[in-house]
Amino acid sequence: MARLVERKLGVLNVGLAQFAEAIATAGGAALQVDWAPPAAGDRDAAMALARLVNAPAIENANRKAFEAFLAASPVLRGVASARELPGLTGRMLLHAGPPIEWARMCGPMQGAIVGAILYEGWAKNADAARALAASGAVRFEPAHHHAAVGPMAGIISPSMPVWVVEDTAHARRAYSNFNEGLGKALRFGAYGAEVLARLKWIETVLAPAAGAALASLGGIELKPLMAQALTMGDEVHNRNAAASALLLRRLAGALVRAAPAPAALGEVFDFIAGNEHFFLNVSMAACKAMLDAAHGVPGSSLVTAMARNGVEFGIRVSGLGERWFTAPAAAVDGLYFAGYSAADAARDLGDSAITETAGLGGFAMAAAPAIVKFVGGSPEDAIENSLRMRQVTLGESSVFQLPALDFRGTACGIDARRVVDTGIEPVINTGIAHRAPGVGQIGAGLTRAPLACFAQAVVALDAQLGRG
Amino acid sequence: MARLVERKLGVLNVGLAQFAEAIATAGGAALQVDWAPPAAGDRDAAMALARLVNAPAIENANRKAFEAFLAASPVLRGVASARELPGLTGRMLLHAGPPIEWARMCGPMQGAIVGAILYEGWAKNADAARALAASGAVRFEPAHHHAAVGPMAGIISPSMPVWVVEDTAHARRAYSNFNEGLGKALRFGAYGAEVLARLKWIETVLAPAAGAALASLGGIELKPLMAQALTMGDEVHNRNAAASALLLRRLAGALVRAAPAPAALGEVFDFIAGNEHFFLNVSMAACKAMLDAAHGVPGSSLVTAMARNGVEFGIRVSGLGERWFTAPAAAVDGLYFAGYSAADAARDLGDSAITETAGLGGFAMAAAPAIVKFVGGSPEDAIENSLRMRQVTLGESSVFQLPALDFRGTACGIDARRVVDTGIEPVINTGIAHRAPGVGQIGAGLTRAPLACFAQAVVALDAQLGRG
Repeated sequence: MARLVERKLGVLNVGLAQFAEAIATAGGAALQVDWAPPAAGDRDAAMALARLVNAPAIENANRKAFEAFLAASPVLRGVASARELPGLTGRMLLHAGPPIEWARMCGPMQGAIVGAILYEGWAKNADAARALAASGAVRFEPAHHHAAVGPMAGIISPSMPVWVVEDTAHARRAYSNFNEGLGKALRFGAYGAEVLARLKWIETVLAPAAGAALASLGGIELKPLMAQALTMGDEVHNRNAAASALLLRRLAGALVRAAPAPAALGEVFDFIAGNEHFFLNVSMAACKAMLDAAHGVPGSSLVTAMARNGVEFGIRVSGLGERWFTAPAAAVDGLYFAGYSAADAARDLGDSAITETAGLGGFAMAAAPAIVKFVGGSPEDAIENSLRMRQVTLGESSVFQLPALDFRGTACGIDARRVVDTGIEPVINTGIAHRAPGVGQIGAGLTRAPLACFAQAVVALDAQLGRG
Repeated sequence: MARLVERKLGVLNVGLAQFAEAIATAGGAALQVDWAPPAAGDRDAAMALARLVNAPAIENANRKAFEAFLAASPVLRGVASARELPGLTGRMLLHAGPPIEWARMCGPMQGAIVGAILYEGWAKNADAARALAASGAVRFEPAHHHAAVGPMAGIISPSMPVWVVEDTAHARRAYSNFNEGLGKALRFGAYGAEVLARLKWIETVLAPAAGAALASLGGIELKPLMAQALTMGDEVHNRNAAASALLLRRLAGALVRAAPAPAALGEVFDFIAGNEHFFLNVSMAACKAMLDAAHGVPGSSLVTAMARNGVEFGIRVSGLGERWFTAPAAAVDGLYFAGYSAADAARDLGDSAITETAGLGGFAMAAAPAIVKFVGGSPEDAIENSLRMRQVTLGESSVFQLPALDFRGTACGIDARRVVDTGIEPVINTGIAHRAPGVGQIGAGLTRAPLACFAQAVVALDAQLGRG
């Protein structure tokens, strides 16, 4: 022992960095290895994980689920009324994220519900709408329970038009509402007259024109369009500039032939051309369709949804049915528009993390170096995020390529086990809403899916498989 | 000396690598320094260069020329008939590159001239057109002599419509013809019935619609649009997918309101939407406008045009008036479409190297990693090309940024002295035409502006300044 200390020490320090720093301060050399206990020290999750790692039943289930995800072929088929959504009946409003009751909803979601009630004509003014919402006479259910997704508050009411995305490989549909553009918008909780007028215009002018154009085209294959957008600087969550322009390009000729009066047509083109986020909702429905194809494989730990209601973050897992695993929604670390700060921000909100669940958005940031001007960080950070997500996923996309990473596919197919094992929380690019209803977007940034959701899912999967 | 050889030798080898390799083969260590004599050993150019380096008159002239280049503000103002081009009169056809007579022209250029003669109705058939061209009854002049540029053969005839780009900072105009799309096209020397019919449709349907739309918009600022395209994977020479979609997006509403019958409108949208190179000619005219703003500054060694006629590569220099400095056009190193090889290729052709002259195209490849699938190489090569061009340029663009290089501006303002000094030839992304008229594009790749052009320019500038 004495001889050991006499020699020059080479220290390998695993875990807490302070020990290595102390040695360095004393003039010694220590190599620091980043390590944290699985499940951040959650003993139940760690024990469950130990039983689930390399379990053949789970590996086989994940292979099956991941193959179904890769095989999905979402096609933008047309436009429908939200009344056609499976299970949407009567006075029901759909919202983003896991289930939540009126009283606990965040400001933007309550504001959007007031707006939707006014838009539907169920109440005469905002006070009456608020009273109706609180009375229990309106049912609130997650959009995800009705094959749909919506950004931010994600409110979908029966009269709203929805995009119909059909996964032709599995004959299954997913839906999303129409993007209203930036500024005052229902999805941020605004419900003023101009917001309601725009929703009515979308319902009566834009949606029929888009529906007619899509009918004449027979649909638009979305994977090639999204893959092309990735080579054009989009990650198809927070940046949809290319995808929106490509969608307009695909629709233009058909819109001209199929649409009604020239005046309306000019408005339609101006609206689509003026909204770089126009494609976001289509992207979300496409991702939902791809992930629904992978849902319901018994034993699979593949994450098929990540969604936030502004209070809780929830995930769903292929082998765990309709259950949500939730944790408090995180704050978003980002850049704020002039005049706003983190103190004004709502918590993480919206179904749009379905894009990250499908290996896009934050997972595909390497495709979108320019997005760092919007969400913060450097282009190197963007590449680093895309690389790090390979540690929590089952594989790479066969179609979505990252030019900056020599055309490697995006990391996709989040494995709840790997998140728990590595402690690496899935990264999410997102907009930031003001905490008060109706102010709108005040910034954009990065956030992470809470580890606790994945730890619960791992415990539940272990329980379902009969605990070893 | 004996003691020197006894010791371990550390060899620094400058220039020819073989000496270093010999030492390495013998088991020694040698550090190789890349170096070549200025002007690749051209003694006259090297002597001229020695007198021109750091000459205050040239530095001042270059500063002035470069500032004018940066200050240029090209606006897509409208559409005109080529008859309105300055100096285009009677039976004159404009072509790409430096001056060349009919007999020496390459296949694609002769084919395009036959097509233009038929399109103008100056001859009844191809044989008669060829005879007319050879007779001397048609004048051939570089488009560059008439404030215009054209891709590949670059033929512009009096009846063709041209884009009007106005540099509002200097009240000066530049022009280009309309892009016909891929496949059989006049610019590749095709002159079949479908080519002529498409030219007539461009003249009678597309151009009036685009002109009316631009008139109602009052014009489109091109620098912001091109800068945005650089954040979307374009380098606005060989890749214009984003810029074309952005231009369509800007025009769409105005086209609907300004244009004629719905049937024609559908054709217009389909044509623009179906051609990812639609913006190329607009990009070229914008670059021409920026560079013309820098032309004519006495003493300036700034390169204001690089252009190829398929036989010769020519450059023009700000301080050297209307003179061209030429060398044989190079072959293009690239990827060929299925069924074609280098044996089928025409030499470097077209005015489109005006984009590289303005710091775009090959100089901005770092913005367009996906282009390597088209021109060859890896995304790393693309970044390397953009970095290397900083060694031959006067500065960086104030508006055109490269996200992958942490938003540094593109290298721009080619200094003929620096090209000669470093021996680094400006890189050019380009399409490859079949050597026979009418076959069309058979590939794309990289080529370089020949050093000899720059060496001649340096000698001429030295002579003009009175030789030291």
